[in-house]
Amino acid sequence: MNTGAQHDELYLIDCLQFCNWSTKVFRQMRDGGLDAVHATLVYHGSFRDAVHAIEAWNRLFAEHSKFIFRGRSCRDIIDAKRSGRTAIFLGFQNPSPIGDDIGLVEIFHSLGIRFMQLTYNNQSLLASGWMEANDSGLTLMGRRVIDEMNRLGMVVDMSHAGARSALDAMEYSALPVAVTHANPASWRNTRRNLSDDVIGALAQTGGMMGFSLYPHHLCGGSECSIGQFCAMVAETASRYGAGFLGIGSDLCQDRPPSALSWMREGRWSGKIVDGKLEGFPPQPSWFRDNRDFCRIGEGLGAVGFDSTEIEGIMGGNWFRYLQRVLIEPDGAA
Amino acid sequence: MNTGAQHDELYLIDCLQFCNWSTKVFRQMRDGGLDAVHATLVYHGSFRDAVHAIEAWNRLFAEHSKFIFRGRSCRDIIDAKRSGRTAIFLGFQNPSPIGDDIGLVEIFHSLGIRFMQLTYNNQSLLASGWMEANDSGLTLMGRRVIDEMNRLGMVVDMSHAGARSALDAMEYSALPVAVTHANPASWRNTRRNLSDDVIGALAQTGGMMGFSLYPHHLCGGSECSIGQFCAMVAETASRYGAGFLGIGSDLCQDRPPSALSWMREGRWSGKIVDGKLEGFPPQPSWFRDNRDFCRIGEGLGAVGFDSTEIEGIMGGNWFRYLQRVLIEPDGAA
Repeated sequence: MNTGAQHDELYLIDCLQFCNWSTKVFRQMRDGGLDAVHATLVYHGSFRDAVHAIEAWNRLFAEHSKFIFRGRSCRDIIDAKRSGRTAIFLGFQNPSPIGDDIGLVEIFHSLGIRFMQLTYNNQSLLASGWMEANDSGLTLMGRRVIDEMNRLGMVVDMSHAGARSALDAMEYSALPVAVTHANPASWRNTRRNLSDDVIGALAQTGGMMGFSLYPHHLCGGSECSIGQFCAMVAETASRYGAGFLGIGSDLCQDRPPSALSWMREGRWSGKIVDGKLEGFPPQPSWFRDNRDFCRIGEGLGAVGFDSTEIEGIMGGNWFRYLQRVLIEPDGAA
Repeated sequence: MNTGAQHDELYLIDCLQFCNWSTKVFRQMRDGGLDAVHATLVYHGSFRDAVHAIEAWNRLFAEHSKFIFRGRSCRDIIDAKRSGRTAIFLGFQNPSPIGDDIGLVEIFHSLGIRFMQLTYNNQSLLASGWMEANDSGLTLMGRRVIDEMNRLGMVVDMSHAGARSALDAMEYSALPVAVTHANPASWRNTRRNLSDDVIGALAQTGGMMGFSLYPHHLCGGSECSIGQFCAMVAETASRYGAGFLGIGSDLCQDRPPSALSWMREGRWSGKIVDGKLEGFPPQPSWFRDNRDFCRIGEGLGAVGFDSTEIEGIMGGNWFRYLQRVLIEPDGAA
C-alpha cells in the first residue's frame, strides 16, 4: 500500500483506542499518519466521572494542539489531513454516564461525544453485554436512546453487546450501527467476538465492522501473525464484501494492569482486586503502536486486496460511514 | 424611536431576564422585536442542577424553534434578526455550579453558557456578594476563573457583587466586565444598586451597565414612571457617557413566590420558608413584559436622547460589547 496522498480521499482511521494518552502517543499517531482516532473516554462510572474525563481531554487538546484536536464531524477529518494533525473523536464504551436521564445524550453530544456503546460487558439500562447469560435485547430506554443518537448524529456502537441486543439495535436504528472493535467468532472463538449472524447483519444494514488487534480477540493471541490476521480479513471480505470493513485496533498502549481491572470490574462487581493483577497482554510484534498502522495495509496487499479495497479498510469505509451518521456543522465543506 | 430596520445594525437586546419560560413569553419576545435576550439559568445549586436546567432549555429550544434558538456569538444575533427569532444567551447568576473545579468553566462554555456572575448576594469562592458585611474582593480562584472566562469568551457579570469585588474584577480582567442589571444607588439607594465608583469604572474600562426594571431597583418601586426612569438614564449618561449603557430588565414574568424564595435562600441559608411568601412586586405599568420593550426607547427620546444614543442603549451597545467579549466560530460573517 502506498500511503502517500495519491488521492484526496485517502484517510487513515483507527476507530477504537484506549491508550494512556501522552505526548509520546500523540507523536506516534502523527508518525503513523493517522487522520482520525476514536478514543474511549469511559468504560464505567457516573455522569460526573465522564465530565471529569472530558475536562482532562480539554487539557490534552490545549496542550497538544500541534498534534491533535477534537473531532466532531467529517469536516474535522478533512481538516486533520490538511493540517497534519489527528482528529480525536471521543466515545463511551458504556452508557452508564447518562444513567436513566436521556437528556444527557444531548449534553454529551454538545461536549463532543460522538460514539456510545449501548452496553459494555454486562447488562445496561439499554441492552445486554456479551457476558450475560440471558440477553434482554434492546430495552425500552434503549430504543429511545437510539432515537436520540440518530437525531443528534452519534454512532451506536454494539462492540461488547450480546448478539440479540446487537441485532435488535441494527433492526431498530434509523442510521446504521457499528461494531468498532471485534473479530469474527468463527476465527477466534469467544462470545466477545461476532457471530456470523451479527456480521451479516452489519454488512446488510450499511453498518461497519472494525477489526480488533487486541490479543485476546486474535487467533493465537499475541503470537498471531500479520498474515493470519489479514487472511481472516480476506475471508470476511469474501463472505460479506469489503465495503463495511475497517480497523478498530483496541490499542491500550502504556496502560497499567489496574486499567484492565477497572475495565472488567468497574464499581459494579464489588470484587476485591488484589495486587496480582494480570495486566495487558503484549501487542503482536507487527502492531506495537500507531507507528505500525500502515503495516496492516501492506499485509492486506499481501493477501490479495486491491488498492481501492485497502484504502477502504484503512479508513475510507469509516469515513463514508461517518459521513452518513455524523451531522456536519452549518456551512461545512 | 423608530424601531423599523432603518439600519442593519439596529438590535434590540435585553441582557437579563428570568421569566417562567413559555410559548406565551417567547411569542411576546417576538412581538416586542427582541433580537437577543440573556436568560438566567441558575441562581444557586450544584453542577448537576445546572446541567438539568440546560437539558430543560434543550427541550425548550427544540419545541420553540419558530421563536427562539440558542445564542453563542454575535453571529447568532445577526441571524436572529434575519430570521425573525430571538437568540437566547444562557447565563448563571452564581458560580456555584462550577464548585471548586475550574475545568467546569469550559464544560459550561461548551454547553452554551456565555454569562456568569462571579457572585450572587452572598460570598462565593470567587468574590463577595453585596449582602456580605466584609467584601473579600476577587479571590485567588476568582482570578483564575476570570482568566478562563477571558480565554473562552464569556461575560464576567458583577451585578450582585460587593463594590470592592466589582472593582477588583474590572481591574483584573483582560476583557471588559459587565453589570447586566442594576441602577445607580444615587437614584435608588440600596447596596444592590451601583455606587458612583463602580459606574465610573465600568465606563472607563469599556464595560457595560444594564439598567434594571425590577421594581425593588427603581425609585418609587412599582410606581416609578417611565419619565423618572428615563431621566435617571439621562443623568447617568450626562455624567459618564451613553456608550456603555444598555438594558437588563430583570423581568421575572409569571414566576411564583417560591422562585423569589429560592433566589434569596437557595440551599445555603437553611431558612424555613413558610406559606406566607412575599412574591414578586408588580411590574411598572409601562413595562409589563417583552411587548413593552420599545416603550423604553420612546421614553428615552422624550428625555432628549438622539436616535444614535437610543439605538445604542436599546441594544447596539450590548452588541458591540459582546463583539469584543464573545468568540465567533470559524468562518463567521
